[in-house]
Amino acid sequence: MGELSLIARVREMLGEPGGRVLTGPGDDAAVVRADGVAVTSIDTVVDGVHFERSTHSPGDVGHKALATALSDIAAMGAVPGEAYVSLALPDGFGEQQAVELVGAMRTLAERSGTVIAGGDVVSAPALHVSVAVTGWAGDPDDLVYRSGARPGDLVGVTGELGGAGAGLIALREGVHDEALARRHRRPEPRLAEGRALAAAGVTAMIDVSDGIATDARHLADSSGVRIEIELAQLPLARGVPGARFAATAGDDYELLFTAPPDRRAAIDAAARVTWLGGVGEGSGVVFRDSGGGDVPLEGFEHSG
Amino acid sequence: MGELSLIARVREMLGEPGGRVLTGPGDDAAVVRADGVAVTSIDTVVDGVHFERSTHSPGDVGHKALATALSDIAAMGAVPGEAYVSLALPDGFGEQQAVELVGAMRTLAERSGTVIAGGDVVSAPALHVSVAVTGWAGDPDDLVYRSGARPGDLVGVTGELGGAGAGLIALREGVHDEALARRHRRPEPRLAEGRALAAAGVTAMIDVSDGIATDARHLADSSGVRIEIELAQLPLARGVPGARFAATAGDDYELLFTAPPDRRAAIDAAARVTWLGGVGEGSGVVFRDSGGGDVPLEGFEHSG
Repeated sequence: MGELSLIARVREMLGEPGGRVLTGPGDDAAVVRADGVAVTSIDTVVDGVHFERSTHSPGDVGHKALATALSDIAAMGAVPGEAYVSLALPDGFGEQQAVELVGAMRTLAERSGTVIAGGDVVSAPALHVSVAVTGWAGDPDDLVYRSGARPGDLVGVTGELGGAGAGLIALREGVHDEALARRHRRPEPRLAEGRALAAAGVTAMIDVSDGIATDARHLADSSGVRIEIELAQLPLARGVPGARFAATAGDDYELLFTAPPDRRAAIDAAARVTWLGGVGEGSGVVFRDSGGGDVPLEGFEHSG
Repeated sequence: MGELSLIARVREMLGEPGGRVLTGPGDDAAVVRADGVAVTSIDTVVDGVHFERSTHSPGDVGHKALATALSDIAAMGAVPGEAYVSLALPDGFGEQQAVELVGAMRTLAERSGTVIAGGDVVSAPALHVSVAVTGWAGDPDDLVYRSGARPGDLVGVTGELGGAGAGLIALREGVHDEALARRHRRPEPRLAEGRALAAAGVTAMIDVSDGIATDARHLADSSGVRIEIELAQLPLARGVPGARFAATAGDDYELLFTAPPDRRAAIDAAARVTWLGGVGEGSGVVFRDSGGGDVPLEGFEHSG
């Protein structure tokens, strides 16, 4: 497969620029009408590290690469805008597979209001997909940062936890449970929830990519506070063996946030969330059991 | 080397956000004050494809990754803004090497007025560096596209051609010629030239990454014109064996452009350029020898 033939094929799949995108793929760079502030993140997924070709189809890989990048836009409360995709393809990864990969990415892009505005295709020893994604907000104060948690805030999370980790185990063990496997293969960036939570007045937010134990620590560190979580409150996904598993398994891409108690009703009306605990003076993350005792729980470091 | 320790070390090297960058590395995404239009491109360099670890230091790799991305911003005539860097590091690529890689990138960033505003570090089987770079312009009409060449325009190029290709041969053959090797290892994005040419009224522009024979064809295709180049006019870099070599070797990152004849004096005043030929009706690229005959010259397809 020639690089130029694939680039032409991919360009056809992406269609014409429109709306904010004035010049899409095909020039030296994409040109996009700007607005207020640009919110940008880059993420890479690599074969054997973030996915396995034996358990992930090309479409799963394309979806996951865009979803993980969009999850960062969700965690800022920004409106998704454009994605820029670099495909590094090994020998033997054919044009049809590349088209499946880009097709799944385009499906998620369309569903989330994202335009794939540029890209690059190179040869490589292993399949890598890098995605830079830009979201937009009218004003920096419309966004939510990791650093805004304050003592007295409540702590909450969207959706359910541990599902992607349970799906990974099912895939590795050959258990046929398509819904569970899908949680791992096709994570869903919580874009609508992120914007709704930002509008409802959350003070800090982060996406749960490495497991809540690790990501809560990032949030605590950035805000200079202590985060206390009641282990029994964690919303477990189906198939998850227990709360410790749910707290340390990654790849759920739910949103962990803090908010003052007086925003609780507005937040409950804005998104499906579970309240987990509170923010105090100090540093770090503490998990409490039902008796109020501390539970030692080492943060799981994501393999990527 | 832990991913988190390296991320912390890299973040320290990048310093504090400032100017347009409101929130830099350390949150879910960078937040940048926008202006007019955003001009964005993504590029990846891969070990064994775009560079060899045996001939390129970590600093060379970092420089090259950012330089190739910035070259696209130069070719649009935009002002460089922010870079977002994804490092995919193999086992055995140590923290010191990563620091050298990022250090060289930072040196080029500072020199070119670019801020490294975000990034990602992952494990991978081979060294990959992906860079998404955003430049800015007040208005889309301030930029130069590949599609603007018109019959009657002149064709010109900045700098010299073939130097990077000659440098690659010198490196592979073990010839000690540091200046020549540097043309290959440390390409220079023509950012100031790109902006000056845009202001001086060029009609179309592209960076010469794959060799002028290939890149002139991209420009001709996008503009729907025929580009005619006098082979004897090509400005050969020192060490280049001949004009055909200069026309087909890649990685020079000079800027190829078209302009109406009445802009010639303004362009000569704006940048060091060489006039190569003209634009006619039709399609494709023709190289002419000194007698006016056509020279068959197959476009070289870049290995990446």
